[in-house]
Formats: sequence, structure tokens, C-alpha cells
Amino acid sequence: MDHAPGYTTDKAAVLSRLKRVEGQVRGLQRMVSDDTYCIDVLTQVSAATRALESVALLLLEDHLAHCVADAARRGGPEADAKLQEAIAAISRLVKS
Amino acid sequence: MDHAPGYTTDKAAVLSRLKRVEGQVRGLQRMVSDDTYCIDVLTQVSAATRALESVALLLLEDHLAHCVADAARRGGPEADAKLQEAIAAISRLVKS
Amino acid sequence: MDHAPGYTTDKAAVLSRLKRVEGQVRGLQRMVSDDTYCIDVLTQVSAATRALESVALLLLEDHLAHCVADAARRGGPEADAKLQEAIAAISRLVKS
Amino acid sequence: MDHAPGYTTDKAAVLSRLKRVEGQVRGLQRMVSDDTYCIDVLTQVSAATRALESVALLLLEDHLAHCVADAARRGGPEADAKLQEAIAAISRLVKS
Repeated sequence: MDHAPGYTTDKAAVLSRLKRVEGQVRGLQRMVSDDTYCIDVLTQVSAATRALESVALLLLEDHLAHCVADAARRGGPEADAKLQEAIAAISRLVKS
Repeated sequence: MDHAPGYTTDKAAVLSRLKRVEGQVRGLQRMVSDDTYCIDVLTQVSAATRALESVALLLLEDHLAHCVADAARRGGPEADAKLQEAIAAISRLVKS
Repeated sequence: MDHAPGYTTDKAAVLSRLKRVEGQVRGLQRMVSDDTYCIDVLTQVSAATRALESVALLLLEDHLAHCVADAARRGGPEADAKLQEAIAAISRLVKS
Repeated sequence: MDHAPGYTTDKAAVLSRLKRVEGQVRGLQRMVSDDTYCIDVLTQVSAATRALESVALLLLEDHLAHCVADAARRGGPEADAKLQEAIAAISRLVKS
């Protein structure tokens, strides 16, 4: 089924990473509630941010490998539209 | 009490933002489970990343306003140590 | 010629942006030599960083549109290798 | 002289790093002119971006150690204004 979203293959891997990020964010709430030293909280915020970025890269890899590559093989204006859309998403990641 | 962690003042604001990030990360899990289009998932990952960065900036502001400024007023080697520690945390944020 | 580097199309645009970044970096040297206020220098460093990121996105767009899309059309192990290579480059951009 | 810009101490170090970034950006122009493979150009763009970030962190460290710390010691509304200004600059760095 070439219309299935590209990340289906790694759906379990993506969900498990997101579950882990959720755990990190709940851990951050406990740290703040317990008056943990700021710098230690900031270190954990950076770790959660990097974990989210790695989720994004995993999603992007699947998207390029499936949706964008499929569109490239079919060619035509849709191939270009898919590429522009992917570049816009990469741009948001680079700037966030 | 000048030894209280710097973020105490805005503790409620920090906790409320972290709660919101937790909601965004749970929303991301639903999107992936529901086979939402990759690019839309990526847009939400970027939003959650930016929300975490704004938590970091809020924590950092309180830390500079309290811990680092208090140490600067007392002077001596501790002032320099606090500054180095803050710069290392900022460096991790800039690179994450 | 499908072996020509992908960015050839926008070579002039890329070169003109890099020339502009070079000008920004020389401007930064003048600002520092002239003891310009730190915060104003930092604002210009952020502008130069964003300009470099936009060069990277332009290069990446051409690379995906040409090298990666060509490899996807040919298929086989090279398509996967090109994709992994592009993802590694995107990962370095997201983390820098 | 407490009015001298904070980065005066490390002015030579900042200038030498900026000179090096300028060299990297000129090297990028040569790479593009010579049709160097895109991915290799992107690797060098990431290196130049990280070099600019390290200049920013050096400037920020001096600024916090001098301007912001001096203002903290004097206290009053100026201390808060200097802190807000620094946080805004850090925010631009984190987001660029």
C-alpha cells in the first residue's frame, strides 16, 4: 500500500522514544517540584530536547525514504511539491 | 533565604509549561498511533522542542537573576564558578 | 549529466549568499575592533549564523532534488546509501 | 574603567576566531566554485556554524562576567534591564 504514511515501518520505535520523552518531561516536573538545582534541571531539559530531535530525525528519515522517494520515482509536479514540503519541515527543525 | 533555588519565584509558571509540553508529547503519541501524516507530526515535534526551549530560557533567567547575581555580589572564586557553570549550561542549550 | 553535483543549478545563488556571509563576518571583526557593545555584536553573530543555515538549506534542497531523487529513481543499495548520507548531514545541521 | 565593553579582555581571542570563521566561509566559496560534493560542503557549513556559536559563547561569557555582574553589584533597575537584555540575546542564540 503505497499510500500508508512513511513512518509506519518504525512506528513502534517512534512510539517508544516518545514514551521515553514523556517520562523525561514528567521527571522534569518532579525535579522542579522538589527544588532541584537549576543547572541540573537545565541539563535534563537539554537531554529531553535532544531526544525530541532524534524522534524528528527518525520520522524524517522514514518520510524521505518512503513519501519523498516514491514521489521522485513517479516524477512530475508532485515530486517537487513533496520535496518543498520536506525542506520546509527540515528548515523548522534546524531553526527550532 | 538566599540559598533557595533561583527558579522558586516562577515555579508555578515552569510547572505549568512542563505540563503543557507533557500534553504535546502525549498528543504526538496519538498522532503516530493514528498514522497522522509525517509532516504534520514533524510540525508538532518542532512546536514541542520550542516549548522546551522556552522552559529552559525561563529557568536560565531565574538562575542568572538569583544564583549568578548573588554570587557576583559576594564576589570571589564562587562568582567565577557560578558563571562558568551557567555558560556551560547555555552552551548545551545552544548546541541542543 | 546526472553525475554533476546537485547544487550546480543554484551555484550563483549559493556563492552570492556565501559572499554575503563573508561580509557579515568581516563586519563582526570591525565591530569587535571598534569595541561595539557586546549585545549588538551578538545580534550580528545570530544573523550570520542564520545566513549560514539558509545556505545549508539551499544546498540540501538541491542535493535532495538531484542526487537523492536520482538515486531513488535508480533504486537499489545506492538509493539507501544516499538517503543515510543525507540524514546524517541533516542531523549535523539540526545539532549545530 | 568599568565602562569598557566586557569583551575587551578576550578581544584578541574573539578576533582570531572570527578571522578563522572568515577563512572557513572563503573555503566554502572555493568548494562551491570547484563543484565539491554537496555533502562535503554541508559538513563544512556545519563546522562554520559551530565556530560562530563558539564566538557567541565567548562574547556572552565576557558580557555576563563584566556588564551583567557589574550591574548586579550596583543593583537597582539597571541590573534587571541588563539581565533581560542578556536573556534576549541568549534566546536569539538558542533559536538560531
